[in-house]
Amino acid sequence: MDLTERYHAYIACLNAREIDRLGDFVRHDAVHNGRQIGLTGYQEMLNGNYRDIPDLVFNIDLLVADVELVASRIRFDCRPAATFLDLPIHGRRVIFHENVFYHFQDGKIAQVWSVIDPEEIRRQL
Amino acid sequence: MDLTERYHAYIACLNAREIDRLGDFVRHDAVHNGRQIGLTGYQEMLNGNYRDIPDLVFNIDLLVADVELVASRIRFDCRPAATFLDLPIHGRRVIFHENVFYHFQDGKIAQVWSVIDPEEIRRQL
Repeated sequence: MDLTERYHAYIACLNAREIDRLGDFVRHDAVHNGRQIGLTGYQEMLNGNYRDIPDLVFNIDLLVADVELVASRIRFDCRPAATFLDLPIHGRRVIFHENVFYHFQDGKIAQVWSVIDPEEIRRQL
Repeated sequence: MDLTERYHAYIACLNAREIDRLGDFVRHDAVHNGRQIGLTGYQEMLNGNYRDIPDLVFNIDLLVADVELVASRIRFDCRPAATFLDLPIHGRRVIFHENVFYHFQDGKIAQVWSVIDPEEIRRQL
């Protein structure tokens, strides 16, 4: 069975901002872009995102999954309050994408490789 | 049958620099990051990459595929001759990644959504 359903539940958790439940989807020793941030670091990262982007919603544009990997293209259509990726946005509406891979172990995210292109945002400012 | 084998053949074509064979893998009306560049534009893009990065090799780090979508994380370990993504590299060795999705139609690439994070390169300069 592939991880599609599991991944949708993870994104639903992010969009409900139920950070307390994140441990259902993310391992305690999770690695994000090469840094072992763990579950606690993952929660801090998301809380930072929610703070920086009050209207943050994760929209899955593309999804491919097998039994251990998920690849997702996530679309964001939002108004970051101040700066984001060092870009001065200050409440303007921007649309951008994240192309991200996840390695799952025992049904939980163990490793994440995420890329956002800041150029896509810069062109809108 | 998923597209894994087909995608490996496409990457082998890129690494062999057999641009004349690219039409075996890319549709004549292909769209790349929202722009309809077509097969000709795709060939021009690759020729530009080969010129800018003489030692360019595509290494598949992660791959997930189903019957119509491929998601790939490609690693580059190379020495761009001058600038790349507007960054002054001038022959220095840099390692960077592309997280990219492909939509295939009838066994050929119809649409590409590619993201490279220039920050990853900038940190190495």
